[in-house]
Amino acid sequence: MQKLFIIKIGGNVVDNEEALISFLTDFSAIKDNKILIHGGGKIATKIGDQLGIKSTYIDGRRITDESTKDLVTMVYGGLINKQIVAKLQLLGCNAIGLTGADGNAIKAIKRPVNAIDYGFVGDISAGDVNISLISSLLNQNICPVFAPLTYANGSILNTNADTIASVLAIAMSSNFETRLIFCFEKKGVLKDVTNDNSVITKIDRTIYQNLLGSGALADGILPKLENAFAAINDGVNDVLIGHANDLILNTTDTTVGTLITQ
Amino acid sequence: MQKLFIIKIGGNVVDNEEALISFLTDFSAIKDNKILIHGGGKIATKIGDQLGIKSTYIDGRRITDESTKDLVTMVYGGLINKQIVAKLQLLGCNAIGLTGADGNAIKAIKRPVNAIDYGFVGDISAGDVNISLISSLLNQNICPVFAPLTYANGSILNTNADTIASVLAIAMSSNFETRLIFCFEKKGVLKDVTNDNSVITKIDRTIYQNLLGSGALADGILPKLENAFAAINDGVNDVLIGHANDLILNTTDTTVGTLITQ
Repeated sequence: MQKLFIIKIGGNVVDNEEALISFLTDFSAIKDNKILIHGGGKIATKIGDQLGIKSTYIDGRRITDESTKDLVTMVYGGLINKQIVAKLQLLGCNAIGLTGADGNAIKAIKRPVNAIDYGFVGDISAGDVNISLISSLLNQNICPVFAPLTYANGSILNTNADTIASVLAIAMSSNFETRLIFCFEKKGVLKDVTNDNSVITKIDRTIYQNLLGSGALADGILPKLENAFAAINDGVNDVLIGHANDLILNTTDTTVGTLITQ
Repeated sequence: MQKLFIIKIGGNVVDNEEALISFLTDFSAIKDNKILIHGGGKIATKIGDQLGIKSTYIDGRRITDESTKDLVTMVYGGLINKQIVAKLQLLGCNAIGLTGADGNAIKAIKRPVNAIDYGFVGDISAGDVNISLISSLLNQNICPVFAPLTYANGSILNTNADTIASVLAIAMSSNFETRLIFCFEKKGVLKDVTNDNSVITKIDRTIYQNLLGSGALADGILPKLENAFAAINDGVNDVLIGHANDLILNTTDTTVGTLITQ
């Protein structure tokens, strides 16, 4: 099977013009099949403030009301996505910007209203991914760039970028040998959170159980690792958690971030 | 050759929720290959006003400065484009939203600065269209929906929607028997501008010369007709100017708008 890298960047890259150009330059140098998923960043909040659209939260969870839905459609699906695509074209990478609605790429289910109504939020699973469309684009040497938006019933929906990356990786692993890469603000999972150079370079299930037992892992990293193992369970070859600056090395066999394997 | 309809809608459809849904319902019922190009509408001006982005004009021509470029990227490429795509998906039409940057669909040249600096405006010609990408999408039964945006040198550019429609039609006519349809606020070109039912249903070059000689045509319609004949000269089969409400009839042989032929 051909290799495929599915790479997620968040606000720390998207919000920083210099970091973004540096990342996109490295990204466009990857010769294997690749898909980019970008998060939202602070620009949506800033533009929302200017438009008088207030972020509402219930129990600490963001609610996507109709105004917020239009805001993220504009900012994620328009401003950020198209700026990235235009920059990648300049760098020689034939990118195509997509939301889940485009080409029916990722169809969602609007999150059911139980105790909380999250509003226009889309829940997705690997079965919702249009594998044939995405494979067809990759086979034409076109690189999909996903905004964190899906759709259902004629409406755009807000969906977490990490979730889209995981679900895409699981779905595409039926056709490709897939590595899922989460770019975050550290070089990898740290043994000692106060020491940026204490990256744990490899975690498999046995090591994970030992780390859990010894209490060495910071609480914040546990959901990321749980998600990584879930993705691997569902067919993803491996998952890499690392810094955007180390992208090129982290797409080789000599990774410097945290490589999570079966 | 297979038939292809290239259909342009402007503000009178985009700005009116009811008119838009009605149009998209008819559009999605067209069984032949089809491409939609949408203009901007008043929503960009409204959001620009809220964000404090002023429209600047020189000699009556709009200037696209950096703020305006970001505004139209958000509103045309994000809000309007993705809302249309999501609605078409609900209507059973597998739409994909594109700017010129996506998949290198339409590469522009930033308009040279002569007497006026128009800012981030893209000039295009038929040679700039990625015919193979668009044909590949159509062959997969995917319907391209273009925002009036192109790109050059890593930047999104503002391009007139009528121009994009014409240039796409000319380019695609090498692979398809192409009809270019401009939806506007009248049922067609009128013999008597005060009488909406005086549509001239057919104009060829001979009729055009006679109409010009008799002074029967309103000044505003002349550029549209000149553009139509230019498109036909460059390979487009015919051009239809008509009302959005008459779309379905205007995609048949029994058109009710103004059909312009060689």
